[in-house]
Amino acid sequence: MDVSAYLNEKAARTEEALEDYFNSWNGAPPQLADAMRYSLFAGGKRLRPGLVLGAAEIVSGDDAAALPAACAIEMIHTYSLIHDDLPSMDDDDLRRGRPTSHIVHGEALAILTGDTLLAMAFDVVSRAGNAAVVSEIARAAGVEGMAGGQVIDLLSEDKQLTLDELRRLHAYKTGALIRVSVRAGAMLAGTDTEALEALTRYGEHVGLAFQIADDILNVTGTEEALGKPVGSDVAHKKSTYPGVVGLDEARRLAEASTDEALHALEPFGAEAEPFRALARYIIERDS
Amino acid sequence: MDVSAYLNEKAARTEEALEDYFNSWNGAPPQLADAMRYSLFAGGKRLRPGLVLGAAEIVSGDDAAALPAACAIEMIHTYSLIHDDLPSMDDDDLRRGRPTSHIVHGEALAILTGDTLLAMAFDVVSRAGNAAVVSEIARAAGVEGMAGGQVIDLLSEDKQLTLDELRRLHAYKTGALIRVSVRAGAMLAGTDTEALEALTRYGEHVGLAFQIADDILNVTGTEEALGKPVGSDVAHKKSTYPGVVGLDEARRLAEASTDEALHALEPFGAEAEPFRALARYIIERDS
Repeated sequence: MDVSAYLNEKAARTEEALEDYFNSWNGAPPQLADAMRYSLFAGGKRLRPGLVLGAAEIVSGDDAAALPAACAIEMIHTYSLIHDDLPSMDDDDLRRGRPTSHIVHGEALAILTGDTLLAMAFDVVSRAGNAAVVSEIARAAGVEGMAGGQVIDLLSEDKQLTLDELRRLHAYKTGALIRVSVRAGAMLAGTDTEALEALTRYGEHVGLAFQIADDILNVTGTEEALGKPVGSDVAHKKSTYPGVVGLDEARRLAEASTDEALHALEPFGAEAEPFRALARYIIERDS
Repeated sequence: MDVSAYLNEKAARTEEALEDYFNSWNGAPPQLADAMRYSLFAGGKRLRPGLVLGAAEIVSGDDAAALPAACAIEMIHTYSLIHDDLPSMDDDDLRRGRPTSHIVHGEALAILTGDTLLAMAFDVVSRAGNAAVVSEIARAAGVEGMAGGQVIDLLSEDKQLTLDELRRLHAYKTGALIRVSVRAGAMLAGTDTEALEALTRYGEHVGLAFQIADDILNVTGTEEALGKPVGSDVAHKKSTYPGVVGLDEARRLAEASTDEALHALEPFGAEAEPFRALARYIIERDS
């Protein structure tokens, strides 16, 4: 199973849908639309759209119904990166090998670009006509989700977190959006409760494995592969899995989460093969 | 008709619903919830919730179905004020007579507080179960709405706008959210196309009158009544109606918009009396 090809195919269809959406605007200020495109079409892994569309495919054999959620969640992910990189936040100049939004467009336009991506994400996803999915995505981005996690992160700088505190931080900051990716995909495609619960567990464990692997790569990766400086977590005095439990134990925790993710997929047959490969890929990748 | 009492009653019910919503969270970082409350419960006029609930009452005699939209739109309005006031934007220290969010909480938390209010607004409104309303509100906040207007505003500093350019700026920046307030209220309460179109026209003209009156107050008002410095538009080199067409013509335009707003209400009877009084109040207020 070629995971990169799988993600690339889902990424291409998500990007096509995003292009169509951008082209549907008549009166957008061009500078704002360009700044949105600059960050949105910056060649990310598109892990979240892959999870949205993949979950839809597993439960129904077809992922088309889930495209609005794939677009919306990638827009929300992109907004969060733009705001994370701001001078008053992580103050990062480089993202995916390119100057960050505020370096190119100035701070004010970068803030508004993030704001706009966040707002418009809810236009995109609401077009799927499922208000429960809108609500879940909003909460995953909100006070008990990504933004809440950002605040915990902000308040934790210079502090040594316990493993439990670190788990909570990441469950909010990155876990919630990954979890809701899987759920939104399954819900939009039509799912029974049992499959939704199994996929939710998969999303939770894969999200955790992804975050631990990210923390590890921030120590052991190369700037060339990552597109950003190695060791930026240490520079920002962030608590990380290698920092809290050591590199070996972090690797063990990532593998344990991957095992749990695979275990969650047991109710499924061959249709879940891509998600099994994806769970392994997440801790084996180099960027 | 006592417009203040009318708005206060709708404001009180919106604030009660917002309190219930805030109290429904279990795991919100307290610093974030407190920062959200600081700006959300800062004693604004609550014009937008008044329009949401008022429109619902006109079309159906009951405004309860529209409460989720009243909460959501006030959260979006509040997020926009927090981000507007940031150092990289208008750099304002004072709002409604109190220090602005970034002065009290620091810039990073202020940005995240705005982000969270924006995201959670879509959780609140999606609970009304009407995806079309979610989409309209998202677009009113987005690239062809409030955020787009902010960008036009940003790019227009130090430039002398024509009256047409100024109209477009305000149709986006403040008009879109006021217009959608009326529409969302009517849609959630259940409306026919004719009433919705009449109320939409009312919302458009009232929004324009509101903005012109705001520009005039920024020149002629008192700091005590406004809760912010008089003349801040001039200090920020913003194009305003008095600046572009002069104070007398600005007053005439505000009155003309009010007349158009009243004209739009002609299909309605006594049930629209509060909206008639509100249209007059908007250009007669002193803050």
